[in-house]
Amino acid sequence: MQVLRGEATRRKPVWLMRQAGRILPQYRRLSERVGSFKTMVQNPEIACEVTLQPVDELEVDAAIIFSDILVIPEAMGLPYEMEKNKGPVFPETIGNAADIDRLVIAGEEGVHYTIAAIKLVKQALNNTIPLIGFAGAPWTIFAYMVEGSGSKTFTLSRSMLYSRPDMAHALLHKITQSTIHYLKAQVSAGADVVQLFDTWAGILSPQLYSVFSLPYLQQICRALQPVPVIVFAKGAFFSLAEIAQLPCAGMGLDWTISPQFARAVAGNNITLQGNLDPCVLYAQLPYVQKATIQMLQDFGPNRHIANLGHGVYPDTPLDAVKCFVNTVKQYEV
Amino acid sequence: MQVLRGEATRRKPVWLMRQAGRILPQYRRLSERVGSFKTMVQNPEIACEVTLQPVDELEVDAAIIFSDILVIPEAMGLPYEMEKNKGPVFPETIGNAADIDRLVIAGEEGVHYTIAAIKLVKQALNNTIPLIGFAGAPWTIFAYMVEGSGSKTFTLSRSMLYSRPDMAHALLHKITQSTIHYLKAQVSAGADVVQLFDTWAGILSPQLYSVFSLPYLQQICRALQPVPVIVFAKGAFFSLAEIAQLPCAGMGLDWTISPQFARAVAGNNITLQGNLDPCVLYAQLPYVQKATIQMLQDFGPNRHIANLGHGVYPDTPLDAVKCFVNTVKQYEV
Repeated sequence: MQVLRGEATRRKPVWLMRQAGRILPQYRRLSERVGSFKTMVQNPEIACEVTLQPVDELEVDAAIIFSDILVIPEAMGLPYEMEKNKGPVFPETIGNAADIDRLVIAGEEGVHYTIAAIKLVKQALNNTIPLIGFAGAPWTIFAYMVEGSGSKTFTLSRSMLYSRPDMAHALLHKITQSTIHYLKAQVSAGADVVQLFDTWAGILSPQLYSVFSLPYLQQICRALQPVPVIVFAKGAFFSLAEIAQLPCAGMGLDWTISPQFARAVAGNNITLQGNLDPCVLYAQLPYVQKATIQMLQDFGPNRHIANLGHGVYPDTPLDAVKCFVNTVKQYEV
Repeated sequence: MQVLRGEATRRKPVWLMRQAGRILPQYRRLSERVGSFKTMVQNPEIACEVTLQPVDELEVDAAIIFSDILVIPEAMGLPYEMEKNKGPVFPETIGNAADIDRLVIAGEEGVHYTIAAIKLVKQALNNTIPLIGFAGAPWTIFAYMVEGSGSKTFTLSRSMLYSRPDMAHALLHKITQSTIHYLKAQVSAGADVVQLFDTWAGILSPQLYSVFSLPYLQQICRALQPVPVIVFAKGAFFSLAEIAQLPCAGMGLDWTISPQFARAVAGNNITLQGNLDPCVLYAQLPYVQKATIQMLQDFGPNRHIANLGHGVYPDTPLDAVKCFVNTVKQYEV
C-alpha cells in the first residue's frame, strides 16, 4: 500500500499473478477433490482457502482473491464453462444488438460468492497483508463474450469495433457498469486494492485501444477513487503513456517491456508492477536469483512492486517460485 | 524495388502477406481439387499457379512465392503436417542435444520444389513485377521445432533459452545456415527480394530477442547482400531500432505499431512496410477506403510499401481486399 502511494520502503513488496492455483500442491489436492474449477470459485469457503494457500506457503506480501474474470459476463446473463486443457468457453456468444439487449447490468451482488469469499479472507488475514480484488478490463471481457473463447486472431471482436462501433460501445458500457458495481462491492467487503486485467489489450491498434478500452478503464478508476487501482494491459506498449494518465495508482507490465522504457514513458507519478518473464522460473535457481535481482535493479529503488510479467504458469517448479519471492524479500533497496 | 532503395515514386507499391491463398475463389477451387496443402507447396506447377492468382486477380505490385516457412525444418529432418483447422504440427519435436545432432544443415537444394516453382513464376512474370522469396526467421522456426505447433505460452521454447542457451544456439545456428542456403537458392532462381517472417518475435523479452534472434537475422541479411531483405518481426516493438540497424532494406510492421512511432525509432534509412489492421477489411468499403488513406498519410510520402499488418485472414471478403489494393494504387504521394 505504501509503494502504491509512492512512499519509500526498506524493501520491495512481491506477489504473483495466479499465485492461488496450480503451482501449489495443496491447491492441486483440493482441486482434485472438488473436481470443478467453477465450484471452487463459487464456494466462498473453498475460494477463501485457495486464496490463503500462497500466503502461507510462499509468504507473499499480498493475497489476491481466488476467482475468475469471467464471473462478470455470467452475472450479466452469459454463463461460461471451464473446459479441461482448453480454458474458458461460452456456449452462447454476443453477435448482434438483440444479444446485447438481453444482457443485464449486474448489480452489487451480481457475484455474491466472490464478495462472500472476500469477507472470509479479510477476516482470516486480520490486516496482516493487503487483499487484492480484481476484474477483467471491459475490452477483454467484450472479446471473450464475442469470440466465445480465446482466439488466435480475434477477428469477430476486432471487426465489430470497425463495422459496428455503436454496438461495441453499447456492450462495453454494460460491462463497465457491471464491473464498477462488482468492484465497489469487493472494496466494501474488504479489498484494499483492485487490479484490472486487460489481457487482450495487445491485439488492438493504438487507435482502437484509445477508443474502445482506455475510456472504460478511466470510468472504472474514477468510480473507485480513492481506492488504488492497478491496470495491467498486456501487450499495450503503445498506450503506457495514456495508462499512466488514468486515475490509477499502479501499472502492470508484461515481460516484453523493459523497466527503463516503462519508466521513461510513464513518468514518475505511478507505481510500476512486474515483470520477470515467467519462463525464467524454469531455469536453475542461481539463474532465477540473478535474473530477479537484475529486474529489481532495472526498476530502480522506488515505486516498484515485484511480480512476474504474466500469471505464473501452472507447471512452474515451486522451488523456483519460492526463490523468486525470497530473492525480492532479501533485496534491500 | 525503387522504394526499397529509397527512391521517390509517383505512388506507393502494394502487396499482401498471404495474398496467394484462401481469400481467392480460384485458390479454394484448386485446393479442393488437390486436397492437401503440402501437395500444393511441393508441386512446382501448382505452387506457380497459386503464386500468380493474386497477381491476375488483385493486380498487386509484387508476387510472393507460395510456400510455407516450415519447409526448412522438414529439409533439416523434422517433417511437418498441416492439420485442418489447427495449422502446422510436428509429430516429433526437438527437446535435447541428441535431437539437434540428428538434424542436418539443409543444402542449396534442400527445398528443391520451391526453387523450381520460383523459376516457373519468374518466367511467367517476365519481369513485369518483382518476385518476393521468403523464409521464417531462425527464432520462429526454432519455436515451432521445440513446441511442435503454435502455442499460447511457448514455455518449452522460451525456457530452453534460459536453461540451455548452449543448446538453443546450436539449433539456431543450424537453422540459420540452412536458411541462408535456401534463400541464396531462391535468389539464384529469380527472387528479387526476400522477406524474413519472425512471427513469434513478440513473445520474447527485449533482452532474449537481442541474444537469440537479432544476431541470426543479421547473419542472414549479411549473407544475402546486396539483395534487399525485408524483416517482419511481429510484436517486436521493443527492437525496431535494432532491426533498423541490420543490413536490411525494409522492415515490416504489425498493426499495433503506429507509423509515426516506427519512423521515429527506425530513422530514415529504411523502408517501412505495413500495416493496416487486417480486421479493417471486414468493415464496409467506404470505411476500408478511409482507413487505408489514413494509413498511407501516416507513413508519409517516402520509403513506404503498403501492406496489411499481418497476413490477410482467409475469410476476408474479396471486395474489401480489392478496395484496399485499389485505394493504394489510386493514392498519389
